[in-house]
Amino acid sequence: MKVQVATSLLEANDIIARDNRKLLAESGVYLLNLMSSPGSGKTTIIERLLRLEEEEAVLSDQSRRLKIGVIEGDIQGTKDAERVERYHIPVVQINTYGACHLDARMVRAALEDLPLSDLDLVFVENVGNLVCPAEFDIGEDLKAMVLSVAEGDDKPEKYPLMFKESALIILNKVDLLPYTDFNMDALDERVLSINPSAQVFKVSARTGDGMEDLYRWLKGRVLSKKCAITT
Amino acid sequence: MKVQVATSLLEANDIIARDNRKLLAESGVYLLNLMSSPGSGKTTIIERLLRLEEEEAVLSDQSRRLKIGVIEGDIQGTKDAERVERYHIPVVQINTYGACHLDARMVRAALEDLPLSDLDLVFVENVGNLVCPAEFDIGEDLKAMVLSVAEGDDKPEKYPLMFKESALIILNKVDLLPYTDFNMDALDERVLSINPSAQVFKVSARTGDGMEDLYRWLKGRVLSKKCAITT
Repeated sequence: MKVQVATSLLEANDIIARDNRKLLAESGVYLLNLMSSPGSGKTTIIERLLRLEEEEAVLSDQSRRLKIGVIEGDIQGTKDAERVERYHIPVVQINTYGACHLDARMVRAALEDLPLSDLDLVFVENVGNLVCPAEFDIGEDLKAMVLSVAEGDDKPEKYPLMFKESALIILNKVDLLPYTDFNMDALDERVLSINPSAQVFKVSARTGDGMEDLYRWLKGRVLSKKCAITT
Repeated sequence: MKVQVATSLLEANDIIARDNRKLLAESGVYLLNLMSSPGSGKTTIIERLLRLEEEEAVLSDQSRRLKIGVIEGDIQGTKDAERVERYHIPVVQINTYGACHLDARMVRAALEDLPLSDLDLVFVENVGNLVCPAEFDIGEDLKAMVLSVAEGDDKPEKYPLMFKESALIILNKVDLLPYTDFNMDALDERVLSINPSAQVFKVSARTGDGMEDLYRWLKGRVLSKKCAITT
């Protein structure tokens, strides 16, 4: 007698996520799952990182340039994909038509539309939502979240899963600090209590402030994976 | 033979929402469902409206004061409920423990914990999320959404259901306009194309700018319902 155990939706997702992880390991591609509320600045951060990589390639050896692809997740439309496409990189748009998050299956289909063997890093810009995306493993190497200064310092306690799951927390729009009641000490304390090992960067993607440090840190992670695989 | 048709989750929700609407009509209570991304300023807007009502009561006839209750929806915690409780009004906290929106059943249970016969207006502050709450009728008289200037002018096209469902659209944090790239004409055009009949108010809940107009408009709606019922 064969007994089948029905897998739940989340278990099914995890199986596909594991497959994605295997595919990415074989291709030596680092997958970054970028999550946040709507309007926290995910796309602007990606654009700024693409520009920093372009600049570095000009200054140093063009052949050592990171090859980057982007998967854009949106309920509908292609606005953000159009923005990053200007950097002449491969971009795939996922439209969820109502779904409030990306899942492993959607990302798998998008990965299959990217030239993985030619890439080192793929950004996945998740649907703007501080709740649902945190629950879904998409096979990423790193879960990262963006919090905008304008959203307030009280968010970690209100959306704890997102802050707990994200190994990288980017506080964006620090240029707005003088015009808000944002309390940085309070934020630091709240993040620390929920996710003590999180890597936190404080940046303004708009002005560029702090972006170079984030870029260096991320590039280190991408190259570590690449080297661990190829050596 | 009796044939039962299984109702879907959304149909079941709509049945309870209809019951909520009936209960509210009988009690003469106006229910406002306030939705937005995390950190757009829902709680601060409610606080400012409570303060305006307090001031009006002092200036005019105390007996004509609107009696207001609040239902706070959060994944966890009671921070916002504690903030509005300072105004000495009845407050019920709903904790969804993971769910990304309120539904009619949750709101029903909260309504039963409020002294409805003593109230004129109940604010429901939904879970911070620009996607899921738009899909669920909770029996409200008015769906309202908040967009913060810091979130950007491109949001209507990316979260069209929320903008379409909301009869009242509050653009908050206009005090940040000088420090962002927000294009007001672009926003107006996008809102108009998705929801031409929406009532739009541009405010800063922090400075109070524009809040008096919003307060007057809302009070008019609440009193219209009350008078239609009692006469």
